[in-house]
Amino acid sequence: MDYCFGVDIGGTSIKMGFFSRREGLVKKWEIPTRKGSEPTLLLQDISEAIELCLLEKSMHKDEIAGIGLTAPGPVTDNGLLRGTVNIGWGDVFLGEEAERMIGIRPVFIGNDARVAAFGEFIFGAGKEVNSLLMLTLGTGVGGGVILNGQILAGKTGTAGEIGHMTINPFETLSCSCGKKGCLEQYASATGMVRVAKSFLDETDKPSSLRKLEKVTAKDLWDEAKNGDELALKITMYVSRLLGMAVANACYIVDPEMVVIGGGVSQAGQFLLEMIQKEYATNVFPHCRDKKFALAELRNDAGIYGAAAMVFQK
Amino acid sequence: MDYCFGVDIGGTSIKMGFFSRREGLVKKWEIPTRKGSEPTLLLQDISEAIELCLLEKSMHKDEIAGIGLTAPGPVTDNGLLRGTVNIGWGDVFLGEEAERMIGIRPVFIGNDARVAAFGEFIFGAGKEVNSLLMLTLGTGVGGGVILNGQILAGKTGTAGEIGHMTINPFETLSCSCGKKGCLEQYASATGMVRVAKSFLDETDKPSSLRKLEKVTAKDLWDEAKNGDELALKITMYVSRLLGMAVANACYIVDPEMVVIGGGVSQAGQFLLEMIQKEYATNVFPHCRDKKFALAELRNDAGIYGAAAMVFQK
Repeated sequence: MDYCFGVDIGGTSIKMGFFSRREGLVKKWEIPTRKGSEPTLLLQDISEAIELCLLEKSMHKDEIAGIGLTAPGPVTDNGLLRGTVNIGWGDVFLGEEAERMIGIRPVFIGNDARVAAFGEFIFGAGKEVNSLLMLTLGTGVGGGVILNGQILAGKTGTAGEIGHMTINPFETLSCSCGKKGCLEQYASATGMVRVAKSFLDETDKPSSLRKLEKVTAKDLWDEAKNGDELALKITMYVSRLLGMAVANACYIVDPEMVVIGGGVSQAGQFLLEMIQKEYATNVFPHCRDKKFALAELRNDAGIYGAAAMVFQK
Repeated sequence: MDYCFGVDIGGTSIKMGFFSRREGLVKKWEIPTRKGSEPTLLLQDISEAIELCLLEKSMHKDEIAGIGLTAPGPVTDNGLLRGTVNIGWGDVFLGEEAERMIGIRPVFIGNDARVAAFGEFIFGAGKEVNSLLMLTLGTGVGGGVILNGQILAGKTGTAGEIGHMTINPFETLSCSCGKKGCLEQYASATGMVRVAKSFLDETDKPSSLRKLEKVTAKDLWDEAKNGDELALKITMYVSRLLGMAVANACYIVDPEMVVIGGGVSQAGQFLLEMIQKEYATNVFPHCRDKKFALAELRNDAGIYGAAAMVFQK
């Protein structure tokens, strides 16, 4: 069968994609995320959206090869989605629930960042390599490892969770996860803003950042590119921790490529090169020429990866 | 074919093992390591040792299923051994060289710590699990990752190299690898002694360690077990960094089990539980019940793993 749906469940909206094996992404749209203590209503919304799409295309459910579904929580290698705090659910076998509610099977599920990495691996920046590590620098820091052509889920669904790698054992502030010194505390969009503030408070040095009412991660990288000395110093600090975390991860899985995605990665080649440089100073000489690339699929990586889970099986 | 050789090349001696598929380890012995700029003489020594063994058993080379060989350097997934500083070689396809010199094929090669992890996975502490991460706490800190029933070698042969994970980004002393803040600087036998010295120098507190002419890692753990307060404080510091590094690694590959081996692991359950406790404080709640175990094969893990590379293919 030549068609499938790729569905990317986020905290505020659900991205829907209708894919053809030959033509790729045929149609994409979004619906709002209905929160609740169980996924029933949300799956009902997805089910209705899929039925409307099929009606529009004059197709039937039995012409669909399957559905790929992402969720903002850890998914174990046997398909258990662990409590997704953002949306309000406890532990659930979301794939099985979805098969029953939607009436299309199989439904494959995966953690959103891991599935986005798979999207980049099959359709994006990583389509020429055999393995990759992807970091998603957004509100949080997500990650995913692709080995042997597959998402590495791990025993408890946390493989690839680089955002919660301890990178500063002496940190006194807590991360949203409860522990201290996670990469996310410095390298997420909010983390970068926090770091920027503490640098700005520590010194009287002039900086174009001081003229802004509210500094965002985008401002920080823009001003660093414009040559603002303090902004550059802050981005170097953040890049150092990112490069170190990537080096640490590469010392565990040693992939062919590292892909940087998420909203912050729009800072582009400038950011990529700073991370790559810091990576290289933290690994053995013969590991220094690893491929680094920016993600290519942007916000669509999730639906592409979800579709790839169906088409690659 | 039911027989193979497992050979573990170390800096001072080569461990040789003759294995039967049914009976396991039939005979083991050691020969000295001949150093040189090329592996020719060393392979000659191994070849002679194998021929003597076969003579003794009245067997021929064509009755041997293959040879597994470990080396103290990174081995890429296509079989390239990168420069092994300890012995003096540059980059070499050691398996192919060995096949030619010894006249038995196939010869599989792997990094010593990764192969030891494979030995524990097939024959030792990990024989009931599907994936594991092993740490070898010896003169250095080695490591290996087993996923999908195989050694994860990685693109450049460094997958599993947890000893060089940066665990302290503020360290000012250099590791033997050249970078600063590697786990090995605190958690190898020599690293632990260094840490102990700095704790002893920093305070006047009495400690049974002060009575020793020269403190070893074994002394440190023995005195901690005996209730010496300062020794306990030092082992807790070391365990905290070890637990953090293991947590970081588990956030990347999330294996079913963590195995602790190497000379220092003879401190036993006491050490294992301290590492496990620190691991648990550094991961999400649902990841805390990961299996931890002490290595079971001790110094034979390398030859067992080498034999397993042959028998499992």
